[in-house]
Amino acid sequence: MSEKSVWKPAFVTRQREDLTDAEARALICELCHHFYHQGWASGTGGGVSVRNGERIFMAPSGVQKERMLPEDIFVLNREGEVIEPPQTPGLKVSACRPLFLHAYTLRNAGAVIHSHGIYAMLATLLYEKNFVITNQEMLKGIEGVGAFDHHEVPIIANTAYEEELTNSLEEAIRAYPKAQAVLVKGHGVYIWGRDWMHAKAQAECYHYLFEVAVKLHQMGLSPAHGGLA
Amino acid sequence: MSEKSVWKPAFVTRQREDLTDAEARALICELCHHFYHQGWASGTGGGVSVRNGERIFMAPSGVQKERMLPEDIFVLNREGEVIEPPQTPGLKVSACRPLFLHAYTLRNAGAVIHSHGIYAMLATLLYEKNFVITNQEMLKGIEGVGAFDHHEVPIIANTAYEEELTNSLEEAIRAYPKAQAVLVKGHGVYIWGRDWMHAKAQAECYHYLFEVAVKLHQMGLSPAHGGLA
Amino acid sequence: MSEKSVWKPAFVTRQREDLTDAEARALICELCHHFYHQGWASGTGGGVSVRNGERIFMAPSGVQKERMLPEDIFVLNREGEVIEPPQTPGLKVSACRPLFLHAYTLRNAGAVIHSHGIYAMLATLLYEKNFVITNQEMLKGIEGVGAFDHHEVPIIANTAYEEELTNSLEEAIRAYPKAQAVLVKGHGVYIWGRDWMHAKAQAECYHYLFEVAVKLHQMGLSPAHGGLA
Amino acid sequence: MSEKSVWKPAFVTRQREDLTDAEARALICELCHHFYHQGWASGTGGGVSVRNGERIFMAPSGVQKERMLPEDIFVLNREGEVIEPPQTPGLKVSACRPLFLHAYTLRNAGAVIHSHGIYAMLATLLYEKNFVITNQEMLKGIEGVGAFDHHEVPIIANTAYEEELTNSLEEAIRAYPKAQAVLVKGHGVYIWGRDWMHAKAQAECYHYLFEVAVKLHQMGLSPAHGGLA
Repeated sequence: MSEKSVWKPAFVTRQREDLTDAEARALICELCHHFYHQGWASGTGGGVSVRNGERIFMAPSGVQKERMLPEDIFVLNREGEVIEPPQTPGLKVSACRPLFLHAYTLRNAGAVIHSHGIYAMLATLLYEKNFVITNQEMLKGIEGVGAFDHHEVPIIANTAYEEELTNSLEEAIRAYPKAQAVLVKGHGVYIWGRDWMHAKAQAECYHYLFEVAVKLHQMGLSPAHGGLA
Repeated sequence: MSEKSVWKPAFVTRQREDLTDAEARALICELCHHFYHQGWASGTGGGVSVRNGERIFMAPSGVQKERMLPEDIFVLNREGEVIEPPQTPGLKVSACRPLFLHAYTLRNAGAVIHSHGIYAMLATLLYEKNFVITNQEMLKGIEGVGAFDHHEVPIIANTAYEEELTNSLEEAIRAYPKAQAVLVKGHGVYIWGRDWMHAKAQAECYHYLFEVAVKLHQMGLSPAHGGLA
Repeated sequence: MSEKSVWKPAFVTRQREDLTDAEARALICELCHHFYHQGWASGTGGGVSVRNGERIFMAPSGVQKERMLPEDIFVLNREGEVIEPPQTPGLKVSACRPLFLHAYTLRNAGAVIHSHGIYAMLATLLYEKNFVITNQEMLKGIEGVGAFDHHEVPIIANTAYEEELTNSLEEAIRAYPKAQAVLVKGHGVYIWGRDWMHAKAQAECYHYLFEVAVKLHQMGLSPAHGGLA
Repeated sequence: MSEKSVWKPAFVTRQREDLTDAEARALICELCHHFYHQGWASGTGGGVSVRNGERIFMAPSGVQKERMLPEDIFVLNREGEVIEPPQTPGLKVSACRPLFLHAYTLRNAGAVIHSHGIYAMLATLLYEKNFVITNQEMLKGIEGVGAFDHHEVPIIANTAYEEELTNSLEEAIRAYPKAQAVLVKGHGVYIWGRDWMHAKAQAECYHYLFEVAVKLHQMGLSPAHGGLA
């Protein structure tokens, strides 16, 4: 093979926890780009926030998530105050701010993902108050959960403004200590983890399980039982 | 991290309104490439037009949308007359011209997208005269619409030639002032916005909602109610 | 914008009919790569052949279609005899050879595409002897067909060996002069056009229509009527 | 055409059996990246192992499969002992180790793929003990199988820990000598081949057939008969 044969990863940020500020900014852009192409962040919706020690990195509101650049990113403290505005003028911090902060405060999360993935949204309409599933290998990917556990994710009602979700999201996080996510009816899902890699893995497992539930329902099998009787 | 770790966006046109002519040409190519890979512009169908002040940029007719180059683009005035033909010889301006012009004239749009997205087309067959949906977060992405509004998009009959849609499209735009789109039965959709970023976000939200409607129908839930009773 | 902002197409072969031999070889590799990622050519199946005047370019048999290189391509004459073997040793010409030749001979095609696209295959199981559809805009993309025509594509029985399809494919091509394609039951489809761009556009329109038929069936609507009563 | 027109494959490892160690490491990274984007290896699940003579290359446990680098790869002997740990510190060898070894030992495989592809998992819930299908062209891609054969793939029960699958996987491999794969209920599939190219082709054919079975079921047709009565 020629020198062409040295494989290079498409995404360049390695599997690391310790990030410089520049890397944290680039990482958010890279993840938003990736999530957009997975259908989690279209129409300027969805997004991701990463905490680097006491510094919280967050995307601006209402922009095309797949085209963000590092100079568009806000830095906040753990109280949610902007301590470094983006270099790009005219941007406002994401409306998800108070929701992301709850995961940081109540669960000591290292990263939070908000997704409008269509199967996440559809799964909220299959169940009344909680998403429930069992008998699925992908449950092992959820922190502290086994393949044969009955795993529940709370579903809260949607509101006219994103900020109005804050109280019910807080209640749901407290009421479901085993869940790493909160679903919002007709809207999508918030998912967190102890760092960006963990949050991303949780998000991939949950999105897989939401799609499984919808497809099992379409096949006439019971989503709550993971397709087994 | 090495120098490899500086993330670069796959698409290079930033989130900007002010474009040079060269940028407007490149932008149309880039967007057509993107829309092709999203399934909105296969089989030489679909397309996008961008207005830069008084100059309207438009793709040629019947070409592979993902392979267009900046030298293939037409420039028209607001009356729809070609004021700069493309450098590439032998091209004809898109048959969508009169339809795009209606959105520019009646709504002062800054960009118009025409899509054959399969869920847009299928959604036209689920409803008689209007697409209707509510209780969906993605409705917030549509200009002036809230998540709990009953949002309607007109569906006009298809015609043997694209130009024959002109009158019914004009009527539909006038009759549905809250819609940012017109669906065409068994065909697809026209969507516009105040600039290319806004039009693209509208298009992403509408395509999401069209897919939701079809999938809710398949799940035995009511599309018009967004899956809620 | 910086120099980054000059958009470049992902695929580099322009929209041209006149090709050098080197370009024809590269084009086949590029199209196979593209078709693989569209799900038309997985598991070493599917493929494409391009005719450049009297020289017919064809992929080898049983190789990973997305990893072919220009030196893997065979050149045949119009009788189907190999006139230039590939530089890469140990390759055999595609088993599709006699099937591709029929499209070249009977329809004077400039390119032929063989696809295992899952909706093409599934569509063969929805109908007895012919795929039929109408009331679909994408029909306009098929040579000589209008959106309101009842368009038919023959479906022939599959055989144990690809070469055994030769006679029934020839019969089907002769019996359906308005079709640009022949479906094979439980297998896939052969599609052709006057040059590679035309064949590719035909293939994109047909694959869209096959998917529409399957999805309409799942929605409880009539595929043969394009979802209209 | 300009120099831009020389097509280059996205993936650089050619269709070769003979690999250097560096190439084997790069190949595993490249394939994991590819499988992640096909939905076979999300949430740190799934993976691939390649045997180069007596040296077995294997990915680490619990990492993002699309971001692995050559320095993360373990080398094992045919008894499954680590003979070269990865350069990257802190990694553990994949929990699939004993399962991969069974395919190497019992079938003299050259590569083994483990996938969580959603249609593979869903197919395990459509059938009791074996996946069965016939009348499908893609069956020809499975080693020693014809399009009209009734092909069976065993489905074993899932377990709380991946290692606990070892015995039942061994039994299933011995009991189904014509299968190149073993499905795991509510989990996914193990697939092997005589080298990495063959294993990949088997995996693509099987995943196609699993998706066909689920979609035929949704269409009201018989998956076991490949949609034919």
